[in-house]
Amino acid sequence: MIIIMKDSASARDIAAVEKILEDYGFMTHPIHGEKKTVIGAIGDKRLLSMNQILMLSGVDNVVPIMKPYKLASKELQREQSVIDVGCGVKVGGKALAVFAGPCAIESQEQFSEIARSVKASGANILRGGAFKPRSSPYSFQGLASEGLEIMYNSGKECNMPICTEVVDTRDVELVAKYSDIIQIGARNMQNFQLLLEVGKCGKPILLKRGLASTMEEWLMAAEYIMSEGNENVILCERGIRTYETATRNTFDISAIPVSKELSHLPIIADPSHATGTYKYVAAVAKGAVAAGADGLMIEVHNCPEKAASDGPQSLKPEKFDALMKELDKIAVAVGRILL
Amino acid sequence: MIIIMKDSASARDIAAVEKILEDYGFMTHPIHGEKKTVIGAIGDKRLLSMNQILMLSGVDNVVPIMKPYKLASKELQREQSVIDVGCGVKVGGKALAVFAGPCAIESQEQFSEIARSVKASGANILRGGAFKPRSSPYSFQGLASEGLEIMYNSGKECNMPICTEVVDTRDVELVAKYSDIIQIGARNMQNFQLLLEVGKCGKPILLKRGLASTMEEWLMAAEYIMSEGNENVILCERGIRTYETATRNTFDISAIPVSKELSHLPIIADPSHATGTYKYVAAVAKGAVAAGADGLMIEVHNCPEKAASDGPQSLKPEKFDALMKELDKIAVAVGRILL
Amino acid sequence: MIIIMKDSASARDIAAVEKILEDYGFMTHPIHGEKKTVIGAIGDKRLLSMNQILMLSGVDNVVPIMKPYKLASKELQREQSVIDVGCGVKVGGKALAVFAGPCAIESQEQFSEIARSVKASGANILRGGAFKPRSSPYSFQGLASEGLEIMYNSGKECNMPICTEVVDTRDVELVAKYSDIIQIGARNMQNFQLLLEVGKCGKPILLKRGLASTMEEWLMAAEYIMSEGNENVILCERGIRTYETATRNTFDISAIPVSKELSHLPIIADPSHATGTYKYVAAVAKGAVAAGADGLMIEVHNCPEKAASDGPQSLKPEKFDALMKELDKIAVAVGRILL
Amino acid sequence: MIIIMKDSASARDIAAVEKILEDYGFMTHPIHGEKKTVIGAIGDKRLLSMNQILMLSGVDNVVPIMKPYKLASKELQREQSVIDVGCGVKVGGKALAVFAGPCAIESQEQFSEIARSVKASGANILRGGAFKPRSSPYSFQGLASEGLEIMYNSGKECNMPICTEVVDTRDVELVAKYSDIIQIGARNMQNFQLLLEVGKCGKPILLKRGLASTMEEWLMAAEYIMSEGNENVILCERGIRTYETATRNTFDISAIPVSKELSHLPIIADPSHATGTYKYVAAVAKGAVAAGADGLMIEVHNCPEKAASDGPQSLKPEKFDALMKELDKIAVAVGRILL
Repeated sequence: MIIIMKDSASARDIAAVEKILEDYGFMTHPIHGEKKTVIGAIGDKRLLSMNQILMLSGVDNVVPIMKPYKLASKELQREQSVIDVGCGVKVGGKALAVFAGPCAIESQEQFSEIARSVKASGANILRGGAFKPRSSPYSFQGLASEGLEIMYNSGKECNMPICTEVVDTRDVELVAKYSDIIQIGARNMQNFQLLLEVGKCGKPILLKRGLASTMEEWLMAAEYIMSEGNENVILCERGIRTYETATRNTFDISAIPVSKELSHLPIIADPSHATGTYKYVAAVAKGAVAAGADGLMIEVHNCPEKAASDGPQSLKPEKFDALMKELDKIAVAVGRILL
Repeated sequence: MIIIMKDSASARDIAAVEKILEDYGFMTHPIHGEKKTVIGAIGDKRLLSMNQILMLSGVDNVVPIMKPYKLASKELQREQSVIDVGCGVKVGGKALAVFAGPCAIESQEQFSEIARSVKASGANILRGGAFKPRSSPYSFQGLASEGLEIMYNSGKECNMPICTEVVDTRDVELVAKYSDIIQIGARNMQNFQLLLEVGKCGKPILLKRGLASTMEEWLMAAEYIMSEGNENVILCERGIRTYETATRNTFDISAIPVSKELSHLPIIADPSHATGTYKYVAAVAKGAVAAGADGLMIEVHNCPEKAASDGPQSLKPEKFDALMKELDKIAVAVGRILL
Repeated sequence: MIIIMKDSASARDIAAVEKILEDYGFMTHPIHGEKKTVIGAIGDKRLLSMNQILMLSGVDNVVPIMKPYKLASKELQREQSVIDVGCGVKVGGKALAVFAGPCAIESQEQFSEIARSVKASGANILRGGAFKPRSSPYSFQGLASEGLEIMYNSGKECNMPICTEVVDTRDVELVAKYSDIIQIGARNMQNFQLLLEVGKCGKPILLKRGLASTMEEWLMAAEYIMSEGNENVILCERGIRTYETATRNTFDISAIPVSKELSHLPIIADPSHATGTYKYVAAVAKGAVAAGADGLMIEVHNCPEKAASDGPQSLKPEKFDALMKELDKIAVAVGRILL
Repeated sequence: MIIIMKDSASARDIAAVEKILEDYGFMTHPIHGEKKTVIGAIGDKRLLSMNQILMLSGVDNVVPIMKPYKLASKELQREQSVIDVGCGVKVGGKALAVFAGPCAIESQEQFSEIARSVKASGANILRGGAFKPRSSPYSFQGLASEGLEIMYNSGKECNMPICTEVVDTRDVELVAKYSDIIQIGARNMQNFQLLLEVGKCGKPILLKRGLASTMEEWLMAAEYIMSEGNENVILCERGIRTYETATRNTFDISAIPVSKELSHLPIIADPSHATGTYKYVAAVAKGAVAAGADGLMIEVHNCPEKAASDGPQSLKPEKFDALMKELDKIAVAVGRILL
């Protein structure tokens, strides 16, 4: 780390900082400028943190030089990770992964119909919510274990991997039993106990970006999962919170190239939650694929007017089908394929 | 709710919206303007949601007229709630509640020393972290149950109620056994399972505002806890995420009068987490009391340079003591008292 | 507009609101719900504003039902505007507009070389800054009128329209004399005097979105220009300010479909200013075209290491050339062409 | 500045960076860590900017060590500036400055009545808008020069300095002739030509913080004014743009202690524009004074229901009078006085 001293720091302040650094085993390299002194320090930040240095007299700022995540970092692994999620589907390779399905699972009949439909249009992973995090305690909270069974049945029927969210450490085992990919939702991205628990479950994890999380916090959340031995983490950009109200969230398209620069993990895009409105889903989906996303997660509902959750952002099956045809051309234009 | 039709909506669109509303038992009141039609609808939103109406042809926008929270709302209870947290301390009354202590509990010796010190300066509730949500899996995660015991001992010794955070549904019972007030941290404000679980535990809850939560989402989180029968919720403003980097978060002082307008729940301020820097804690603490906060939560550490967590935002005991003297004058100026 | 009364509003409050509305010539339509009364009001908001109603006793909220912009609105003109910017180039049609050039004009030699190069790669409009809004008074502020002449010469030489920014009402006449398209920069999007002045100048205007402007504010800024009789406004999304620091701004890709929903004006994307880093320009440029942008504005510099302004976000000519080839495929995939 | 090289930087990359730095007259101090090399560089950033270094091969990041503003910085002048604004009123001293008046000047009668009223309540500076920046071209834009005369008359009558906004470089001379303090509004904080122009006018400047400006950008805007020789700049915090919609903006109370840490310029608070609602003005005003603000700017209107602009955030004279009495006690509690 680099310690920038204040203009007004005394020689005594500077000596005190150097002494503490050396006491903790750091090598110090002071640079004396005309007005300011800067101290380069090489050592183990677990022994003495930046925060502790910041407290010392005469210190203006402390700048890190190492990234705080390691397993998720491209510095550790330069090749893009490709994650096998079952039924022959891989996320992060040349073929795009398309997760599709309703926001909430409502019945076997509803889910099966949507599943068959999205498969016919070219989706390769089924999504659906059995445990729903809803902002109101009075809203429909999901079918829970019954929903998991419904989803499992449809996955078998269609020979597609299924992805569903877990919201409680106590349910991880159950959800892992039924699903192929476990989703950590935006609201739980920093539910660290849940991250540790899914890190132990052996299934690939879809990690949504938090409502207002930085790229660094997101990769640190991936690091939590990976630190438990589970390297199969798929990032999912789903829009961030900004002042703009024309869309529910602001889809951060730059997250795609930035994540590719910083990490080897695959990244998919969720235009449904990002925009909150079916009218804008297609434009953002196409943009994400052109920008290099490894896949998409799209809400599809056969009767969005009657959806138990998030109807306005769901595409009808025919619109989803039309979108897949458009996406196919864009995928080809950027050297990818859409199965 | 109020349905605003598009300029281009046809008579058929309008009739279709009215029909669906009536099918679900709503009373409709159409208003035909020169360019637009607006439909007022009175009925039960649990049967037919705004989102479902939004999907219909010709609909431009749907506007709610009722607040989504009820138990937390001032419309339900007009008098300010006063919450008894034990040892004779009440939050929400004329006397201010001052929660003080270190970010993380490090040892019995450390905690006891700080506890005695903050009590001597006038704090009336002890705070400290046993389970720490840290953004890195490689950072100190807290002493867990050992920390709870340390805290419990100090609470007994000083005859002060203690407040500590719970981060996992599986730990609620344990934390409730040791502590007088259970804290839900910013990162778990929308961990709905945890909210439901603490709603059942019988202890007062300190509910921190989420990193980027709206006032409405915050009150909805309180509603989750209250919907399980626990009405003893204390709000805690701890800064929100903005583009500004001069402070760790941006303390939203308006949250104090806004919460008083919308809710009967008491609200306290946490200037330590809001600013992230000890230098700015006193100014924000004084501002919050002047603006009408029912109390403060302040980090105090006897040796912040060596704190295991969040040292730079902790006050040394002597600075805390000086601040309490200044706060006393402001409390009196706004008709409150600081014990 | 719709007036939502508080639960606690008295019959007298309601009558008073109705009376004032009627005094100002509004037709009122009260709807009495079980708990709340809502009043629909049809009339001229210039006579009595929403803000004035908000002040009345018992009023909870006032909701507008008409959009505040008219000339820029799709409700006024349903067909997409196509703007002729000279030299046979049109913005908003099937062919994409590609504005390219350096951030700042440094010399005739530099600008001519870049101009010839971007033309060879397929750009059809030259951009460059003669008057630069810089955040520091000590930074290079542009070559001013000398820069305009340099640009004018290159435009003639290459037979390309030129686009440059104006930052002062006193310079509008001068800038309009030399350039084909006048740019209003992000920092001046709400410099209303400047908007009115360029509204009178007769040249097409490129209107960048403000640093933290909403879609509505942006369209209102266009309305200012159009209200002076200049209908040739081209919107330019250049990233908005958020908490994320991995990129300079956050490119709001949804602004593309949202603007198409609300307005008939063409919209182009500026990935250079949005990302602030050349590494991310290509991904965002491709995403914007796939999402439906009518064009791009891209910074190109022959020697970005020595650029007087914004070097790190500029592409070298060979990278720009490679990007144009990739964009060509995406344009075709979405039914557009890149000349 | 400090150059942080990538882990993957080659010895050749490092040598190339050092060579360029030395070519531009910088002294270099390389620090070779186990994984990374860091280069400290001392020299003149006007010759070689951080941005130019960022472009070089193998460079990961460049960190500044000097603040970009100088004249506004506390490093230049450690004592708080006290600015004489006429009629014996000083801003930045022990006595608080209270700017009060209507948002827009509507008539001599209206303004005089409000002026006399706020003076009686203890305000010491008159404020009012003659040139109004309005988001809609169809809204009332102010009385322009007629408004200036009205204001001038009231200032003379009450023997109070007057403060009004200028929005166009062409009006600076006129506004400077009539007013004692010239206001630069939030939307013009980065209208650099206007900043330079008011820097030459000889009158004290009230510089509002931009809608979404950082502390650093704000101080750089002050630097623009000061670089023209006008050192009499008063900062005014008026709320920043965030995702929260319960208030019009989010009042950043931390801006008060942060500005005191970084700069010698006085800072006042505008709770009216920050909250947008009269109900929240008193709480924020009291908080700001307790946090160390040097004064307040408060909108007062004798008939806010009929105000031509911003009625809902204006206090009625009797509420303003009551607030001044409360503020008086808080001022005393923090060692200030309210005349």
